[in-house]
Amino acid sequence: MELRPKVNAIEWMNQSVVLLDQTKLPHEEVYISHDSVAELIKSIQSLAVRGAPLLGLTGGYGTVLAALESLKTTGSDRKKIFYQLLDDLEKSRPTAVNLKWGIERQKKVFERFDSELTDACIEGLLEEAKKIHLEDIQYNYQIADFGSGILREGKVLTICNTGDLATGGIGTAFGVIAKGYEEKKVRHVYACETRPLLQGLRLTAWELQKNSIPFTMICDSMAALVMRDEKITTVIAGADRIAANGDTANKIGTYQLAVLAKYHGADFIIAAPSSTFDFSIRSGREIPIEQRHSSEILNILDENQHITNPSVYNPAFDVTPHELITAIVCEQGVIRNPNEETMQSFFEYKRCN
Amino acid sequence: MELRPKVNAIEWMNQSVVLLDQTKLPHEEVYISHDSVAELIKSIQSLAVRGAPLLGLTGGYGTVLAALESLKTTGSDRKKIFYQLLDDLEKSRPTAVNLKWGIERQKKVFERFDSELTDACIEGLLEEAKKIHLEDIQYNYQIADFGSGILREGKVLTICNTGDLATGGIGTAFGVIAKGYEEKKVRHVYACETRPLLQGLRLTAWELQKNSIPFTMICDSMAALVMRDEKITTVIAGADRIAANGDTANKIGTYQLAVLAKYHGADFIIAAPSSTFDFSIRSGREIPIEQRHSSEILNILDENQHITNPSVYNPAFDVTPHELITAIVCEQGVIRNPNEETMQSFFEYKRCN
Repeated sequence: MELRPKVNAIEWMNQSVVLLDQTKLPHEEVYISHDSVAELIKSIQSLAVRGAPLLGLTGGYGTVLAALESLKTTGSDRKKIFYQLLDDLEKSRPTAVNLKWGIERQKKVFERFDSELTDACIEGLLEEAKKIHLEDIQYNYQIADFGSGILREGKVLTICNTGDLATGGIGTAFGVIAKGYEEKKVRHVYACETRPLLQGLRLTAWELQKNSIPFTMICDSMAALVMRDEKITTVIAGADRIAANGDTANKIGTYQLAVLAKYHGADFIIAAPSSTFDFSIRSGREIPIEQRHSSEILNILDENQHITNPSVYNPAFDVTPHELITAIVCEQGVIRNPNEETMQSFFEYKRCN
Repeated sequence: MELRPKVNAIEWMNQSVVLLDQTKLPHEEVYISHDSVAELIKSIQSLAVRGAPLLGLTGGYGTVLAALESLKTTGSDRKKIFYQLLDDLEKSRPTAVNLKWGIERQKKVFERFDSELTDACIEGLLEEAKKIHLEDIQYNYQIADFGSGILREGKVLTICNTGDLATGGIGTAFGVIAKGYEEKKVRHVYACETRPLLQGLRLTAWELQKNSIPFTMICDSMAALVMRDEKITTVIAGADRIAANGDTANKIGTYQLAVLAKYHGADFIIAAPSSTFDFSIRSGREIPIEQRHSSEILNILDENQHITNPSVYNPAFDVTPHELITAIVCEQGVIRNPNEETMQSFFEYKRCN
């Protein structure tokens, strides 16, 4: 495997969670160390750490932080405080299910240690967090392989950031693109800047450059024109939560790209590890969509230009209905034409084999 | 007629063209006076003045400037210099046909005065420029009436800026919205911020506020979500050039909105004065699309964040094929299902009646 992550977005170091501060990229590569869950929550909410799979890892390591923090308190309340911290952590961002998934996985480890925060339990939690991390690295490679396998040769278009900075490894949609480029299936990448917070222009441009993949940045409003004039063959995106019927929440603007892909005859592919699947909800209608502050949109103006202070709508995500999705790629394989039945039979088959 | 323009974007004053500097809005209302064609071209290219119909007026007044400037030169070259200045002016922005249209109209006046820059001719040119201006004001009202007449009651979505700041009067698409609001057909307006230069967020928000029309600003990537969840009934936009078959060039992102409107069952209406029609070209493929500097997109980052200096695509306009347009509204009426035949018969009928 030639492809390697170029940067570590998260690491466990000296009893702390160390994160690359993604709000400062691409200008500065600043790492922040977190000793408490409260600090970590702040970084999650400011998007210093972001990307659904990476939030899964953050849930894993964050649980270790919560355990260490609870240990510092007096005996009887420890367990209550530990669960409270996990609850706060889980609620820090509502849409990506991976954060919850990472925490839930750690709760099971905690229960294996009789729900006692012993040294052995802390050790076990850290081991599990690292296992989640290593699995994610491995799953990224598998997603890249499966995804590249179904790519038609041509030009691709993507949104937001789904690479090293969104995962523990080479990325989800980004990994598919990188692998596809290696295999000469991807000829050029068009990357949407991804307003309001510009994860495309700031992060994906940086990662495409680090990987020497030829690309062009566009405004989100140029996607249809590029699909038509550049004959985009595939639109590929990550996911923040995938419902049991295949409906997929992802960065705001993804739904629009799916509609435009259908109109222009391009494939629309979602790439995500199975930690992004939420079988507890039947359809995308049940996915909570995070609404963020209007300043994220208005800050594009100089401060003194805010005079009109208009009413602003700022959903961070939207839901693409499964009918618009050509295929969902996860580490276990490819689900073509995702819907309740195909999703169910795919995972049942995987469980039995 | 209740509706009135709230601001004058262009005026002739003391032998100069006075323009509201739209690059400074909404923060500052600064007026710039132009004594030469070169100055005017600078303001056209920086987008201090913009909007296709307003560029038509600018062509009209600009010709008077060119005439006065030519008068200052010695005799024999005058006419040559005059035509050279008009040529420079016309080429300052390629997509909107209105600039050319305004200049061509003035050339006919010049010819009526035996192509001699006499005082009477200058007088005649100024009179014609003011006539173009007054006609535009009147046409805006007619467009508003015809447009509102075909609106379905509900919520509308628009892009870029098409109001006082884009015309001599109450605007094109904006005038239809304002009239529709007055007539209780428009319940709410969703305005796309319109990257990269934010004519929506800077100018349309300002105008909607001045007209007390309830509205919400969105990023361009949110249009599909809003169409679906808010049940937008009509998407309405202006135009920079309309080909003989109804294909329409307008602000980048308009084509995308047309595709999304079709998918969501919303009407897609273009509102523009007939000065925007270019019967010399058969289809949108022949419309020249202005490519602008990458800095317009990259300036959203701090200067020191440009480190990646990515390749950027920055077309200022796109072309919406006529099949996606429900109706084109001009001062003469409504062309439903625009195509070569319906366009031709509409204008033939108008000429005969």
